[in-house]
Amino acid sequence: MFKRVPGTKDILPQEAGAWQKIEEISRNIFSLYNYKEIRPPLIEEASLFNRSLGLSSEIIQKQMFLIKSKGDVYALRPEGTASIVRSYIENNLDKTTKFVKLYYLGPMFRLERPQKGRLRQFHHIGYEAIGSHAADLDVEVISLADRLLAGLSIDGYKIKINSLGCAKDKKELSAILHKNLKDKLQKLCADCRRRLKTNILRILDCKNEACREVVRKLDIADTYLCPECKAHFAKVRQGLDALKINYEVTPYLVRGLDYYTRTVFEIAHKDLGAQDALGAGGRYDNLVKELGGPQLGAIGFAFGVERLLLVSSIRPVSSENLVYLITLGDEPKKQGLKLLNELRECGIACDTDYEEKSLKGAMRAANDLSAKFVLIIGEDELKKNVVTLKNMESGEQKEVRADDLKRELGC
Amino acid sequence: MFKRVPGTKDILPQEAGAWQKIEEISRNIFSLYNYKEIRPPLIEEASLFNRSLGLSSEIIQKQMFLIKSKGDVYALRPEGTASIVRSYIENNLDKTTKFVKLYYLGPMFRLERPQKGRLRQFHHIGYEAIGSHAADLDVEVISLADRLLAGLSIDGYKIKINSLGCAKDKKELSAILHKNLKDKLQKLCADCRRRLKTNILRILDCKNEACREVVRKLDIADTYLCPECKAHFAKVRQGLDALKINYEVTPYLVRGLDYYTRTVFEIAHKDLGAQDALGAGGRYDNLVKELGGPQLGAIGFAFGVERLLLVSSIRPVSSENLVYLITLGDEPKKQGLKLLNELRECGIACDTDYEEKSLKGAMRAANDLSAKFVLIIGEDELKKNVVTLKNMESGEQKEVRADDLKRELGC
Repeated sequence: MFKRVPGTKDILPQEAGAWQKIEEISRNIFSLYNYKEIRPPLIEEASLFNRSLGLSSEIIQKQMFLIKSKGDVYALRPEGTASIVRSYIENNLDKTTKFVKLYYLGPMFRLERPQKGRLRQFHHIGYEAIGSHAADLDVEVISLADRLLAGLSIDGYKIKINSLGCAKDKKELSAILHKNLKDKLQKLCADCRRRLKTNILRILDCKNEACREVVRKLDIADTYLCPECKAHFAKVRQGLDALKINYEVTPYLVRGLDYYTRTVFEIAHKDLGAQDALGAGGRYDNLVKELGGPQLGAIGFAFGVERLLLVSSIRPVSSENLVYLITLGDEPKKQGLKLLNELRECGIACDTDYEEKSLKGAMRAANDLSAKFVLIIGEDELKKNVVTLKNMESGEQKEVRADDLKRELGC
Repeated sequence: MFKRVPGTKDILPQEAGAWQKIEEISRNIFSLYNYKEIRPPLIEEASLFNRSLGLSSEIIQKQMFLIKSKGDVYALRPEGTASIVRSYIENNLDKTTKFVKLYYLGPMFRLERPQKGRLRQFHHIGYEAIGSHAADLDVEVISLADRLLAGLSIDGYKIKINSLGCAKDKKELSAILHKNLKDKLQKLCADCRRRLKTNILRILDCKNEACREVVRKLDIADTYLCPECKAHFAKVRQGLDALKINYEVTPYLVRGLDYYTRTVFEIAHKDLGAQDALGAGGRYDNLVKELGGPQLGAIGFAFGVERLLLVSSIRPVSSENLVYLITLGDEPKKQGLKLLNELRECGIACDTDYEEKSLKGAMRAANDLSAKFVLIIGEDELKKNVVTLKNMESGEQKEVRADDLKRELGC
């Protein structure tokens, strides 16, 4: 027997409805904010991610799905932002409108060790606004995330924000950290000892309790921010206050990717356990240039759909008014299938049994499918030119003239 | 500058609307027929495809995107059916309902030499019905495809059907072909000379003019079909006739995958050129068993979305009632952003300029976004507690009391 690849999931019909619902609600909210969908391919040159996420990031170090083909190295996208920025530049979107707001939905891939809460194929609902440095845009991006959660009837979450500052500030922060941590090496985990050289900011992010203890004792706050970045961050907070959005300034909140600058934010949910982020994002004011485009401010955010599903109570409605046809005999079947075709023609969802079941078996099948109506056609009905219509909720059953059936079913 | 992988495409915002529309229409039609969505992962064990598509198929021979990871070989799915059957078996769907109807939307991957009409990442809208041998089910599957094209306002297509017969009949057909072709080797192309040994049915499918000439002169028709398969095929044709679906019986229509049995069909469109199939499908009555499940009849079909787009005139509606906010000055901006938030709260799509453009520049941006209304707030408006509302279609402009604005915008 064949099995799915470890760390991947089948989204089965009984689950797919909730996915559809989340996507539909998200699309509606994106259009409220005038974000438009973009669909870059799922495979990119691996070098795109090396450049944008940073060679020392965990994703590039350990988690890339690589495809080697005749000297080329492609990668399944581990996240959405890099592809979208690549697409933005390659398609000259900056030449036409400069400021664009884009959203995307779809699978991402990371070759993780399969474990609870970590999938190798998982799904993001994300969005990017490219072409502005305005702090008000950060507020819009955060408020959109907040509204999306409201739209999904999710509460119990916390919006954490921080500012990493500009590239210069990040260097400054790294230097301060280095000074503060270099004599605490033995207190850090092995990963963090390595990070001290390769990606020191990630130490602030480490989940290891010993490392967290060390980080808690640091006293850096926002000392590394230049006046412009301080002002930008203050304006973001004022804007959030004006819209009455609850948030928490969280010093040392960093994101594991090289491209982030200034505002970074994360939405954590109390019911999620150790991997508690519903989503995360931030500004990346240097990435467009880094990937070959002009110098443009930009910010993005992505939700993990699997995480949203864990905390949302969204349940799909089942196919509400399904009509299930049961025929008894060959000629009734022929006529019944024509009727089915006509009902579908006028927008009525129908199904039938192709396996010549007994009436009892067919009724059971109708029940399993939660059909609202059952149509029965036997030789008797044919002779009288009627169908037997049973309402499965009320149990009421009556003969209906074939010509009246559509009207009876509201068509 | 980074470029997309050859053979992949960015679906940009101006194109994404048409994709959304096609997907929405398809989903509606699937629910008319009571097909439910399934989303298997995009990566599978490569062996799954080797087994289901057949080692000698072109896809397995040349077109697989393989990912090697610590002794495992994974593959990006080149088509949907194998994953869905794997998922059906692995998740014990046969234990619960036996007969299931499933649909899927999404990317497929084949490592083709990039050329016109051939993408390495392309997209299928497909569906599968598993658990019945009934000829009426073949009719349903074909009529669904027909209705989907009607739903997309596509005409100018032709439904071609054929029957390959059961496994025994296919062997018989291969033997007949072998007898008829073995002395015509020198007339066949190099590929077909190879196919004579590995996958003889594919010769019937070859696009090479010389091979087609040879095939045209064959006189096999349906001589290879056993009585049961002949009766099944006759019943399919009668069912299609009863629903007045136009089709053409096309002897020698085969599909390049090992798993097909009995009814195969293809929908060709006159405007598509050499690669003229909008979609294709057929029965695969042995595949479920072949992949480790019970012996169950099954049939499926898939449309190529890129092909549908080429012949469809579906164009997305632009964001119809977009309200674009222009503020002049700091305090107006603050108040304006709050207002924007309120409008979105009641479901009105809004956008604004974050870049402190001049009034003229901002009006241009509103125009570029096809905004229906522009809201202008300056110091003046603030003092009077009004906003200036301009209808961009009629050109009409008036002052509206801030409290009346929502009503004015229909909220």
